[in-house]
Amino acid sequence: MFAEILTIGDELLSGNTVDSNSSFIAQKLTERGYWVRRKTTVGDNIEDIAEVIEEILERRPEVLIISGGLGPTHDDVTVMAVAKALGKKLILSEEALKRIERFYIELYEKGLIDDPSLNEARKKMAYIPEGAEILRNAVGAAPGVYLVERGVRIFILPGMPREMKAMLENEVLPRLGEKKFIQKKLLAEITDESKLAPLLIETLKRFNVRIHSSPKGFGRYIGIILFGENEEVIEKAKRFMEKKGIRFEEGW
Amino acid sequence: MFAEILTIGDELLSGNTVDSNSSFIAQKLTERGYWVRRKTTVGDNIEDIAEVIEEILERRPEVLIISGGLGPTHDDVTVMAVAKALGKKLILSEEALKRIERFYIELYEKGLIDDPSLNEARKKMAYIPEGAEILRNAVGAAPGVYLVERGVRIFILPGMPREMKAMLENEVLPRLGEKKFIQKKLLAEITDESKLAPLLIETLKRFNVRIHSSPKGFGRYIGIILFGENEEVIEKAKRFMEKKGIRFEEGW
Repeated sequence: MFAEILTIGDELLSGNTVDSNSSFIAQKLTERGYWVRRKTTVGDNIEDIAEVIEEILERRPEVLIISGGLGPTHDDVTVMAVAKALGKKLILSEEALKRIERFYIELYEKGLIDDPSLNEARKKMAYIPEGAEILRNAVGAAPGVYLVERGVRIFILPGMPREMKAMLENEVLPRLGEKKFIQKKLLAEITDESKLAPLLIETLKRFNVRIHSSPKGFGRYIGIILFGENEEVIEKAKRFMEKKGIRFEEGW
Repeated sequence: MFAEILTIGDELLSGNTVDSNSSFIAQKLTERGYWVRRKTTVGDNIEDIAEVIEEILERRPEVLIISGGLGPTHDDVTVMAVAKALGKKLILSEEALKRIERFYIELYEKGLIDDPSLNEARKKMAYIPEGAEILRNAVGAAPGVYLVERGVRIFILPGMPREMKAMLENEVLPRLGEKKFIQKKLLAEITDESKLAPLLIETLKRFNVRIHSSPKGFGRYIGIILFGENEEVIEKAKRFMEKKGIRFEEGW
């Protein structure tokens, strides 16, 4: 099962915001057994977004998660770009409109905004591609969007981390099935780095685990991440490597 | 002038590492007047890396910065993938080899490694595509690579942030010319959000600045970033917006 992630926002391309959203999404997908094969980031530009979506659809991932550009301002154009890429019309979702209306009334009642009325900018967020479902936003105004195109399950989430995370947990992950993998991070103390590679390969052959390794500064430590279906298989793989002479410390 | 960034590493796709490298690179390119139009991340896989490089070259950015996968381990395959994508042979750089040798001798003399000899894994880092230049690594073993292909200036940097930053500052940025843009981050207090968009457009017309805006929670604040060639033009644009009724706070 392979997946792609697309994050959208000029602030990600000017370096003003570090894209922690895509890491969060990647982690959750990895835990569910998806192989995230590519992440892409483009700016708030309809043509650029539509182009990259067409490219991703050509690669036929099982899942595509898009984050960013769902808000009320003029540079929030993600849903329009998706509709363009898919050749679909945008239609007004009455359900989305009601939720948005209620959301701004609540903000008004809390004294956070001066005017709760549904102006054009706010109403814009209720338009979704025809045939799509809305995804509930538990903590913000803009609803997410879910649709399936050419076998690709496409989820469009907001870019604000708080909203994205809530929607991912509540609306996306339940549609993607059970947690399949857990992971353990270890620091391997290496007195001879050339020992490690063949040992990793042997461990992969013997146990149903995946292993990532990455250097942690020079000298004696290599960061190891063991992925497996449960604690037990990870513990077994770890013990096997320990018997072969690797000393581990937990975490990094 | 447009640019792309490609970051490489399985740890970025499993969500275990937040890709702060690409933000750092994006910021430095933006300051120099480049428009970073797309960022892509793929794993430590020769075919995937080669494929994405071919795609990027088709889009003909002026600059492509690649980060990650330059080290000695078996999953460091970036230079091989670039050579594959470009149809170039890998050749041993004597200069690179000498630097790598010296680097491991220094680590050995500091007591950080047991064996300073140039094994195959270490020697691998001295191979670069034919016609390429090496970029000096001030703080690590793996040299970077610089080459020009179909008018695209390609820089390959390590993935370890400390090494990447030093190489970007010392070896890449001097080749990309002077700092052209500075930026100022402001929080705009908005009593009516619909006021802001037309005012931003007017400001863009009058002053030689670029503006990014992004919501900062609900209610009264919108984050604004003003880009300009100097403090003066930014100050003028800011004062213009203040006269039109926007109240700013500095920073966010």
